[in-house]
Amino acid sequence: MDQIKQVAIVGGVHGNEFSGIYLVRQYLAQPEQVKRASFTTESVWANPEAHYANKRYLHSDLNRQFKNCDLANLALSNYEQSRAKVLNAQLGPKGNARTDLLIDLHNTTSNMGACLILTQSGPFYNQMAAYVKMMMPEAIISRDEDHFAAEDHALMCTLGRYGVLVEVGPQPQSVLRQDVLELMHRMTQHILDFVEHYNNGTLPVLPKETEAFRYLHSIKLPMNAQGERIGMVHKNVQDRDYQPIYPGDPIFTLFDGSEIPYDGDTVVYPTFINEAAYYDNNLAMSLNEKVLITLP
Amino acid sequence: MDQIKQVAIVGGVHGNEFSGIYLVRQYLAQPEQVKRASFTTESVWANPEAHYANKRYLHSDLNRQFKNCDLANLALSNYEQSRAKVLNAQLGPKGNARTDLLIDLHNTTSNMGACLILTQSGPFYNQMAAYVKMMMPEAIISRDEDHFAAEDHALMCTLGRYGVLVEVGPQPQSVLRQDVLELMHRMTQHILDFVEHYNNGTLPVLPKETEAFRYLHSIKLPMNAQGERIGMVHKNVQDRDYQPIYPGDPIFTLFDGSEIPYDGDTVVYPTFINEAAYYDNNLAMSLNEKVLITLP
Repeated sequence: MDQIKQVAIVGGVHGNEFSGIYLVRQYLAQPEQVKRASFTTESVWANPEAHYANKRYLHSDLNRQFKNCDLANLALSNYEQSRAKVLNAQLGPKGNARTDLLIDLHNTTSNMGACLILTQSGPFYNQMAAYVKMMMPEAIISRDEDHFAAEDHALMCTLGRYGVLVEVGPQPQSVLRQDVLELMHRMTQHILDFVEHYNNGTLPVLPKETEAFRYLHSIKLPMNAQGERIGMVHKNVQDRDYQPIYPGDPIFTLFDGSEIPYDGDTVVYPTFINEAAYYDNNLAMSLNEKVLITLP
Repeated sequence: MDQIKQVAIVGGVHGNEFSGIYLVRQYLAQPEQVKRASFTTESVWANPEAHYANKRYLHSDLNRQFKNCDLANLALSNYEQSRAKVLNAQLGPKGNARTDLLIDLHNTTSNMGACLILTQSGPFYNQMAAYVKMMMPEAIISRDEDHFAAEDHALMCTLGRYGVLVEVGPQPQSVLRQDVLELMHRMTQHILDFVEHYNNGTLPVLPKETEAFRYLHSIKLPMNAQGERIGMVHKNVQDRDYQPIYPGDPIFTLFDGSEIPYDGDTVVYPTFINEAAYYDNNLAMSLNEKVLITLP
């Protein structure tokens, strides 16, 4: 039977997302909080120099460095590219990792609450999602698993045999909020409890259906031909992550005062609305559909 | 009689506070929004390179470079120190400025709403505060005028003959929220309308008393002997800017779970709670007393 023997909790992949950094410090100082009988847990601080610089990253986004081809490419040698190789040696190697489950802790400036993001599919993830949502009804389950095979996936969490992201907000960059820290701690504890039950065959009866949001695509802020932004996220959409957007709803306000409606054909559910870190790419939000995770 | 002939609206002194940058762009594109009959208004973008770098500043905080001695010291030559000298030549010179009123636009990550900050005292400011609060009851008036003479004051707004800050939040660094932009625009418009009435002698009857908050001092996050943070702002205080803190109220939660009470003798009112930009200095919040601005 599938057993999880080694869990890694990773914080601070992005240096200005403080909850994961402080939660990993807390777990290093109080390791009994992540201790369970059936597996070993290690807590890892991924990107210290970015935190010292109070930035998301020094040279490139660490959470985009874990494609197999990039890990193997020794010419990619900046700070985060080097950290990725070290973390791969420490916790991997990807594809044959000694880490059975990697839990990667992140913050968003968006109003997303505590969100469990699954980047791969399968019964283990489905049961985890059902368990976490049952124990923590305010948790959001997010699926983004159909887009890449693991070896082409650039995210840190794909380094483990299993891997998930815990994404909690809203929290400004470079701020530590107690409420957000506690939400991240609670979701992480439920994941560890799930693994303990999974290993021991003691999972409670799980709901047959669990609501989740499945990533479709991202949309950009309105720009002119010169690539300059000419508008912003509409105030009716701001902070309303997971709330439906219907065809024709206003989603952008231009600086000239006019409004741009959503031009899709179907209802969608936005996430990462106005996320500060995605401004470099002029991303306004991600759009999702609502789906059900079903257990046999 | 005292007349305001030249007003400068300055945005983007800090490169990751987006509202002021976009509001100045809006005013440059639609100058009729800041046009009034009795004075001239110019809109100025103070720190473009910091915005391009998506940072508060490149080399040092531009809003700390306007002491007379520093403006006169040509050895202070980094980017922001140079920008301060250029802005002083453009809008000043401080002490004998061609700018009668400088309005400096800022954002905070704290839940401060629209806050008018007065750094100098006098009847002009008292009337402005009373007018703005009357026209915009949700506005907060903040006084911080007893601490320095103008020549020793490092803030950009002290460059003008009169100067105020418009501080609006909460907004994460590097994010543009429509609601926050609109709040900043509304407060700025009320200030311009006030000046127009002031010049023309057409001010409406103003309230004899206007509530304000007067800055007392700032307090730091709990730290150990090595200067490392050992706690955070208590969740009961987070987001409760301007709400009273009583002696004995918990204000910090340590990472070991214990709580630290406020050890002062009198009720205080916090502002800039958990402001991201003040983390470098480990500042947790500013404490204020409630005062009344009285008109004769």
